[in-house]
Amino acid sequence: MKNSLIKDLYRNTENYIDQKVQLSGWIRTIRDSKTFGFIEINDGSFFKGVQIVFDEQLDNFKEIAKLPISSSIKVVGDFIHTPQAKQPFEIKATEISIEGTSNVDYPLQKKKHSFEYLRTIAHLRPRTNTFSAVFRIRSLASYAIHQFFQEKGFVYVHSPIITGSDTEGAGEMFRVTNLDMDNLPKNEEGKVDNTMDFFGKETNLTVSGQLSGEAFALAFRNVYTFGPTFRAENSNTARHAAEFWMIEPEVAFAELPDIMDLAEDMVKYVIGYVLEQAPEEMNFFNSFIEKGLLDRLNSAHKADFGRVTYTEAIELLQKSGEQFAYPVEWGLDLQTEHERYLCEKVYQKPVFVTDYPKEIKAFYMRLNEDDKTVAATDLLVPGIGELIGGSQREEREEILASKIKELGMSEEDYWWYLELRKYGGTKHSGYGLGFERLIMYLTGMSNIRDVIPFPRTTGNADF
Amino acid sequence: MKNSLIKDLYRNTENYIDQKVQLSGWIRTIRDSKTFGFIEINDGSFFKGVQIVFDEQLDNFKEIAKLPISSSIKVVGDFIHTPQAKQPFEIKATEISIEGTSNVDYPLQKKKHSFEYLRTIAHLRPRTNTFSAVFRIRSLASYAIHQFFQEKGFVYVHSPIITGSDTEGAGEMFRVTNLDMDNLPKNEEGKVDNTMDFFGKETNLTVSGQLSGEAFALAFRNVYTFGPTFRAENSNTARHAAEFWMIEPEVAFAELPDIMDLAEDMVKYVIGYVLEQAPEEMNFFNSFIEKGLLDRLNSAHKADFGRVTYTEAIELLQKSGEQFAYPVEWGLDLQTEHERYLCEKVYQKPVFVTDYPKEIKAFYMRLNEDDKTVAATDLLVPGIGELIGGSQREEREEILASKIKELGMSEEDYWWYLELRKYGGTKHSGYGLGFERLIMYLTGMSNIRDVIPFPRTTGNADF
Repeated sequence: MKNSLIKDLYRNTENYIDQKVQLSGWIRTIRDSKTFGFIEINDGSFFKGVQIVFDEQLDNFKEIAKLPISSSIKVVGDFIHTPQAKQPFEIKATEISIEGTSNVDYPLQKKKHSFEYLRTIAHLRPRTNTFSAVFRIRSLASYAIHQFFQEKGFVYVHSPIITGSDTEGAGEMFRVTNLDMDNLPKNEEGKVDNTMDFFGKETNLTVSGQLSGEAFALAFRNVYTFGPTFRAENSNTARHAAEFWMIEPEVAFAELPDIMDLAEDMVKYVIGYVLEQAPEEMNFFNSFIEKGLLDRLNSAHKADFGRVTYTEAIELLQKSGEQFAYPVEWGLDLQTEHERYLCEKVYQKPVFVTDYPKEIKAFYMRLNEDDKTVAATDLLVPGIGELIGGSQREEREEILASKIKELGMSEEDYWWYLELRKYGGTKHSGYGLGFERLIMYLTGMSNIRDVIPFPRTTGNADF
Repeated sequence: MKNSLIKDLYRNTENYIDQKVQLSGWIRTIRDSKTFGFIEINDGSFFKGVQIVFDEQLDNFKEIAKLPISSSIKVVGDFIHTPQAKQPFEIKATEISIEGTSNVDYPLQKKKHSFEYLRTIAHLRPRTNTFSAVFRIRSLASYAIHQFFQEKGFVYVHSPIITGSDTEGAGEMFRVTNLDMDNLPKNEEGKVDNTMDFFGKETNLTVSGQLSGEAFALAFRNVYTFGPTFRAENSNTARHAAEFWMIEPEVAFAELPDIMDLAEDMVKYVIGYVLEQAPEEMNFFNSFIEKGLLDRLNSAHKADFGRVTYTEAIELLQKSGEQFAYPVEWGLDLQTEHERYLCEKVYQKPVFVTDYPKEIKAFYMRLNEDDKTVAATDLLVPGIGELIGGSQREEREEILASKIKELGMSEEDYWWYLELRKYGGTKHSGYGLGFERLIMYLTGMSNIRDVIPFPRTTGNADF
């Protein structure tokens, strides 16, 4: 007999009415009286479980009734349609077999656990309602992003993870090495001889795939990366992880407003996708994680995102009469409190801030005519602050070269990046989306450790 | 005026007949006589380019005529339908503007370059026919894999890249560190004090996401990973890279034949997808990279993959009368020459070999009743050899624990992996697909360096 998935029972109920079905899954709850009992099983295919009714007509009734929760079982039974009841159907078991029992010290007993505790059992937490919902949304949002870009003909590029260069020209990077740390080869100056390392030089984990993306955009026009990136920042906050995933589209012949349109379309597409594909999970978040989540997402989905220059934004903040912890002054970067004030109080919707002072932005951003600002944008969203950072890239070889020199960056490392401007360079623009921030935005989860399957943060690389 | 993409001109030609169009792209070829000229531009959206006809009625005719190849231009013109001609349409330019010129030392002049040379200009090679085709297929195959699994309800899991454990129990791993290599902190024994490192212990780059996948499969039933993996193997071959991408589905309640069916369906799905979505690229490979490629793929797409046990396979090889470089004997692993003989000569189609001797397979593979073999499988495909390796996982806690002990592996590292067997463990199975091997199989490209955007191999981490 073919095994059915619980998701299919919910989505295509009419196919099952009065049919025999076989299910397999894990026991979430179990209770029994002398002659009959109820089991709720979840099979991982769906947020909700199914109620199994079983009674002493089963040969192994007593054995089943004693099973600890989280045991895995196979059930054959009759699908009973109960449209008037709280649960629209249940299964009257004719056969239950034990696939794997569980131990009574199973850590996920019924009582509510703190997220902190659940991080210590990251191998089991996807079995809870919250994390089952989080990681299903993470999967769906990943797919929505691929679908969004692929349907537009974008080429997905696997930018390298191990790299010899530092895109941002700053950023604390992790070193990757194959050398024996207890017996490091030394050069004549007494320093580590990196020429003996696996790649013949010092290598690090990437902080961004953007530069690779630019090379490919100048061949394929529309490209995107979606891969892991790394920061060895020693910041123990709810928003920083050492390992996180980024999406970085890059578009040739595009100016700043073009990729703002693209970013807006993408965010709306992903919101629409998860609301449509996972209403049960999204309702759960709305009820138990963040009241008002659905309103916030639905309103972003319908809104025209705001657009304001950095200079105007500074004026708005200065005129607000609001007391901020950090100073508001032209030339200083916006802090999360400023970002959230702008999108939550002033605009009450996602807003793009554009044209930041060149001093606070990256070397590759295109210098504006005013010679003071660059064609950069951050997308600020309620509840999060900065979700996306993007820019038009400096396509003028001389300006870019002198910027690299000015910042004391290694010109040798950027020979090929400069060549992209030399051989048929075009205007081009792109942005980076921190995928975990997006998941926090979609679910209302407030700690980045709770949206990554096995998070890596300062002092923690367990599992 | 809205910019059109060349792909759309080819796919929806009827919409453009006698219309004004605007295109932008890079010059692939240019030639002119005194009063008129022809430009072939490619805009990255499509394998083929479009012919632009321009003449001295353009104000800037002379300037355009002198443009070096790879310059980027914008063209406005009339779409001329020429169904009888070799090219089904061309554009009669009414306006051409220069977006970015190119330099005369542009390395990709018309003559054919060796793949070896093109690796030294990996930032430019996607502009060639071969690499434009390779990397578009890579993108489409990625998406096909996501689509295949997502449509079946599989949950995509981002398994961690930085890890404290070594899945295969072997494998040369890259060390990840934040320590100052020139001033390493030492412990009392004079060794590196790893407790001072970023994560408080020694960490490495992952060689597989399988163990994480298993944890999630026991919550979501059907999961897959798709991410980068790393091997610090010092092997300078056409088949090995230090950084490559893997797809690792894992399925709870599944036995070995179930995931063989899944793997077969997946391979056929991806073949079907790229043949349908990129016929131009696939015809190019068939003509210029591997004659007979399309026959090979079409026949795999239609075939029922073969299935044979390792023991039977050894007998087939021994009886073959073929001279092999490596010995064929029960207990020894199959070499590529054996694998290719089996699928190319004996079966002439993809074939699963199953039930290998336990000594030559990984610790987590399920011991068969014979106590000599494990429920493992390799999928062998013509032209490549091993494409996929999978197994049923050992779900019996005691057998797994004693195997870990027997191999001298660190039991501490596997506490959580063992717990998966303790709390409602089920039969479960999965496999790993080396994504680059799949791209080589789909395109006929014979060197792994030529299917990765910026390959990382021994001594090479350029770009």
